[in-house]
Amino acid sequence: MKSGGEAGLAEFRAAFAGLDPMLDLVRWEEALGAPETVDYALVWDPGPGELARFPHLRVIFGAGAGVDLITADPDWPRHIPLMRMATPEAAQRMGEFCCWAVLSLLKNARRMAIAQAKGAWDYFEAPGRAELTPVGIMGLGAMGARSAAMLRALGFPVLGWSRTRKELPGVESFAGAAALPEFLGRCRMLVCLLPATPETRHIIRAETLALLPEGAGYVGAGRGMQQRLEDVLAALDSGRLSGAVLDVFEPEPLPAGHPLWSHPKATITPHVASLPTRAERAAHVARAIAAFERGEALTNLYDPARGY
Amino acid sequence: MKSGGEAGLAEFRAAFAGLDPMLDLVRWEEALGAPETVDYALVWDPGPGELARFPHLRVIFGAGAGVDLITADPDWPRHIPLMRMATPEAAQRMGEFCCWAVLSLLKNARRMAIAQAKGAWDYFEAPGRAELTPVGIMGLGAMGARSAAMLRALGFPVLGWSRTRKELPGVESFAGAAALPEFLGRCRMLVCLLPATPETRHIIRAETLALLPEGAGYVGAGRGMQQRLEDVLAALDSGRLSGAVLDVFEPEPLPAGHPLWSHPKATITPHVASLPTRAERAAHVARAIAAFERGEALTNLYDPARGY
Repeated sequence: MKSGGEAGLAEFRAAFAGLDPMLDLVRWEEALGAPETVDYALVWDPGPGELARFPHLRVIFGAGAGVDLITADPDWPRHIPLMRMATPEAAQRMGEFCCWAVLSLLKNARRMAIAQAKGAWDYFEAPGRAELTPVGIMGLGAMGARSAAMLRALGFPVLGWSRTRKELPGVESFAGAAALPEFLGRCRMLVCLLPATPETRHIIRAETLALLPEGAGYVGAGRGMQQRLEDVLAALDSGRLSGAVLDVFEPEPLPAGHPLWSHPKATITPHVASLPTRAERAAHVARAIAAFERGEALTNLYDPARGY
Repeated sequence: MKSGGEAGLAEFRAAFAGLDPMLDLVRWEEALGAPETVDYALVWDPGPGELARFPHLRVIFGAGAGVDLITADPDWPRHIPLMRMATPEAAQRMGEFCCWAVLSLLKNARRMAIAQAKGAWDYFEAPGRAELTPVGIMGLGAMGARSAAMLRALGFPVLGWSRTRKELPGVESFAGAAALPEFLGRCRMLVCLLPATPETRHIIRAETLALLPEGAGYVGAGRGMQQRLEDVLAALDSGRLSGAVLDVFEPEPLPAGHPLWSHPKATITPHVASLPTRAERAAHVARAIAAFERGEALTNLYDPARGY
């Protein structure tokens, strides 16, 4: 158990105690002292080589929907199943975040926040309306699908782009690199929810941003490695992007003094889009362990062929 | 035509020209010079007695969903039909605003905006989730109904309170003063979309705020006269309210230097929640005039018995 430090451990302990009293929860540092006693690991960002030190590990639980920080460890034990934290609560939270972010761009909430900071009544007419504003979602897993359904319910036309074609009600689906230009050309708002893979590195860069309609909005809530941040900044300055809501960065946190912090068109959030609470994560892991010990198949496993 | 000054007039002129070239659009000051030539008035806030100076007025079109600034004129010509600007676009925009405001409270967007202003990475876990957060809407007209449907689609349980009981799919309906305490006791978020009438003056005040669950959120998007602003401020300070998004004020604009401008739990927006664009308002008025001249009944008329 390596997630959230001491305070986090106490919260996890309380949550697990109510769920599966047989589970013995051990702090990471403690576990490293007796690694042969450990059956399961719950971890977001293990130190390099640390997971490999547990000889009897049966399942690794990633603490987030993406497990890229685990697979970035050159020595992570590849023979052990690695389960992503794909909770329904996380998908719902991501949908809520995406709706909030897209509506923030539609309503120009950043302009209103700047006016409030000055104590100024800055009345303006926001011309946009959901039905006139097609939203494109890159990545149509559980999070993308839930976000698409919620945005559709608000009145936004929704397009989706993913590795393989998806059938989602009312969502126009595009798949593969060849379809990316046509997809991007149709997005008044672009939402990136892709997983972190070698293929998605810097997929949001000057060349792809140039394919968006002039004045599009951008929501970055996948992984920081997907966006070339200086290109996003340049697109905001040139007007290619009229606004951006950015929740993920590389590196993270976004460094102090970075020009995006004070950019009048950028809204910065601290990687909070979809995180389940500790209680939700504990419940998810306890359910998964119980199912695993009953001999059921694990779900949401990391797939080395897909890279997520 | 008295709305938006010179720039507004040019926009309205362009919009009307494409819709009904027979309509002769005249600036308010010009119209007052030849008042007997005027058939229709489009106005948000006439000066006292000004509407009464047009002897052949056939219809008054309010430029907003509420016409309280027109009926506040002691001399407004009560025998002339007064039509509220109840466009479907305005209802949709109000729904978008309410979803944005409620999600902003759910995600603690104000805390994130304050952190961004400091350039600080302020990571926190937001415990809320739509399905755990009942939202109560006061006022279930076209705007309230659309907002309720959109919030429901995001996963929020929705309750409604109105003068008379309403049947809206999936919305638990409360009606009348007697039901107000029970309704308020159930709202984790309260959204006020009521019309301005003598009965709704200061309906949001210490006594009613005290009936909300501790730490509720509040969205004020009806009229400023409905909320006793010092009581809202006190509730934010005491923790009764965990946050507020305020779009309407009395007086308006919110005066410079008012403590709400810089309050860490208050988000201030400049009365933009539902305003249709000039093009949408022009289209609505042109359609209404055409229907009226064909002899059809006017819709969304001010009703003196209801007071809106």
